[in-house]
Amino acid sequence: MNVEIITIGDELLIGQVVDTNSAWMAKELNAIGAEVLHITTVRDRREEMIEAFDEAFSRVNVVLVTGGLGPTKDDITKQTLCDYFGTRLVFSTEVYAHLEKLLQQRGLQMNPSNRDQALVPESCTVIQNTVGTAPIMWFEHEGRILVSMPGVPSEMKQVMASDILPRLSAFRQEAAVILHHTCLVRNFAESALSEFLDDFERNLPDDIRLAYLPTPGLIRLRLTARGYEKEKVCQELDEQSNKLHLLLGKNILCDEDLSLPEIIGRYLKERGWMLATAESCTGGNIAHQITKIPGCSAYFKGSVVAYSNEIKERVLGVSQADLDAYGAVSEPVVRQMCEGVCRLMQAECSVAVSGIAGPDGGTPEKPVGTVWIAAKCGDKVRTQLRSFASRRENNIARATQAALLLLVSLFVD
Amino acid sequence: MNVEIITIGDELLIGQVVDTNSAWMAKELNAIGAEVLHITTVRDRREEMIEAFDEAFSRVNVVLVTGGLGPTKDDITKQTLCDYFGTRLVFSTEVYAHLEKLLQQRGLQMNPSNRDQALVPESCTVIQNTVGTAPIMWFEHEGRILVSMPGVPSEMKQVMASDILPRLSAFRQEAAVILHHTCLVRNFAESALSEFLDDFERNLPDDIRLAYLPTPGLIRLRLTARGYEKEKVCQELDEQSNKLHLLLGKNILCDEDLSLPEIIGRYLKERGWMLATAESCTGGNIAHQITKIPGCSAYFKGSVVAYSNEIKERVLGVSQADLDAYGAVSEPVVRQMCEGVCRLMQAECSVAVSGIAGPDGGTPEKPVGTVWIAAKCGDKVRTQLRSFASRRENNIARATQAALLLLVSLFVD
Repeated sequence: MNVEIITIGDELLIGQVVDTNSAWMAKELNAIGAEVLHITTVRDRREEMIEAFDEAFSRVNVVLVTGGLGPTKDDITKQTLCDYFGTRLVFSTEVYAHLEKLLQQRGLQMNPSNRDQALVPESCTVIQNTVGTAPIMWFEHEGRILVSMPGVPSEMKQVMASDILPRLSAFRQEAAVILHHTCLVRNFAESALSEFLDDFERNLPDDIRLAYLPTPGLIRLRLTARGYEKEKVCQELDEQSNKLHLLLGKNILCDEDLSLPEIIGRYLKERGWMLATAESCTGGNIAHQITKIPGCSAYFKGSVVAYSNEIKERVLGVSQADLDAYGAVSEPVVRQMCEGVCRLMQAECSVAVSGIAGPDGGTPEKPVGTVWIAAKCGDKVRTQLRSFASRRENNIARATQAALLLLVSLFVD
Repeated sequence: MNVEIITIGDELLIGQVVDTNSAWMAKELNAIGAEVLHITTVRDRREEMIEAFDEAFSRVNVVLVTGGLGPTKDDITKQTLCDYFGTRLVFSTEVYAHLEKLLQQRGLQMNPSNRDQALVPESCTVIQNTVGTAPIMWFEHEGRILVSMPGVPSEMKQVMASDILPRLSAFRQEAAVILHHTCLVRNFAESALSEFLDDFERNLPDDIRLAYLPTPGLIRLRLTARGYEKEKVCQELDEQSNKLHLLLGKNILCDEDLSLPEIIGRYLKERGWMLATAESCTGGNIAHQITKIPGCSAYFKGSVVAYSNEIKERVLGVSQADLDAYGAVSEPVVRQMCEGVCRLMQAECSVAVSGIAGPDGGTPEKPVGTVWIAAKCGDKVRTQLRSFASRRENNIARATQAALLLLVSLFVD
């Protein structure tokens, strides 16, 4: 089953909001064997929306739409869909009762804007939005489906999981199988890896594709196999991923599409060790990445974000003499941060970062983007000097990634 | 000038990567008076790319393309553009020399894949990529422009800022003016605000639009004015935003499109106060949001992420008796975290959060999503109990937002 996603909203086209919905939806659709061919973002304009619907239906039979369903006047998706499907808005007592209950729970009064949200297109199936006020609309017409959902990510995710994905699975006729295998590869630049895998890639069967997704210091290598018999597709994919393993050996850090914090979490749990972090320029982002993972309290004690030198000294026990002699961005300081936070938090493992995120604070010797990293596991300590020379946001993200990679190297090398 | 953005890459359509490029580009294009009408995402397939180029040029004269320029075989944008514009690849000694230098700096050898990156379409203007290996291609044909850039965000941003935006500004003929005015509104649900502003919205002139962008606890209200004389557009926009101010008064938290951490930074600098944070379930995300802002070292001392109770007690000085009696997610504990981190970091202001992010750890009395927040400025301390009842990721994001809002309330109320 092929699907298109249309996201609606001026905020997306002036760059005020990043569209995170499409990626989430695509992943979930893949999991039920549906493939997203195309994603389109259009403004809250009637003609542009209608053009997008037409173009989408020229390519696929299933179109998922998000956005433009709020109670305010700039949101015109519902009326436009009525026009598109030649139907009219009718009052739904069911939706109204649900709205009343929802607002009551939130301690709010029903007002005319909310009342308008109980108007729904006559020809569609209405699906209740259990976590918000905008009803979800499922249009089905001559074998084609269009589903309109709110743009608020939590509301869209809720209804996708509870209703839309199960309904689409039921609707799906052909049982195309799409399977991905992703592994994480270290120690290669993208072009060098591509050279190295040239023969392998050339000899891949037609129904298997190889894709490279480079991130700093780590390449996600994805094999995608397509077919109609699950067992056969699975077997073909296994065969090729085994070949990859023989070729790449220890350069494969992980054989699943995991994030670095997930990999680190697994190693820590395996060994029964606890982790702490000491952060300067990454400002809490390493701890934030670690604590995104459910269950991390089993192996994560906490973090000290020591943004000022005074905190490095007083809380983490970094020597004032070394801070004066070498500066905050130096090997002795980052090593002491690493050891200090292990002591303070009574943890076996730690990672520490001190650097210059920018845009200010650089010097000729230590320009913006200069970062010292230290990682410790038991008795092993490793340090690393990096130079990212980028924008603040990117320096923070790359320093975080490099710190996690240095920590993981202590487990595997 | 109207623009379309086309992003290319299978990774975007299977949900492995979120497209953050488009929003960034749209914002920058707006700033030079260009408007993005449409964003399209397509797979690395020749026919689908060509269809997207055709559809885009049926609507606009300027198309910006990102992605599919890597040295690997799945990247076919360059060859497809050659076919589309009826030209051929030729070897560029200039690009080759630049590649050689870049690889040398990184300590890498030139290999055949890299060498292929020096092949460029004969009919385009090549713009050097100063931070990466894929050259940027500027096609201009019968008054139409197509620019192909790498999908790697740091490379795209660099070349947009240094070359593409200035060139587009020069190319732009009509001098359409688009101005936005955004303000941040507290204390309203979206539908209630829309009711409240009904008359105002009804009386807006035709060339001004009002849009609502709700985020938890805060609505970004955006007025957009269009016209051809800057002064007149500016004056009209001012007039309407003054009306908004009279209507909304103190509910307007801020009169610019700032983030909460930026607003907090301004207040702290104004008063000369220092901030520290103590985080449990938010896991460092509050500190991460604060430290995203350049110059935050002027007002941010640091954070303690106290993920385990032991750290709450030992590092932040929370009473063990209270931890036992009330649990980690309780008012006394979060208040002591708030005061403890002020003491430890010698800061005047702090914010502390303790909650259950989930998916595990909930109880009937304190279900997943229960969060206690405390904020302190000088002698004033405020606490708040919230209940988000969502997924882990969302609970963390909403707790972070609520904590920043509680802190800001100490400055303004």
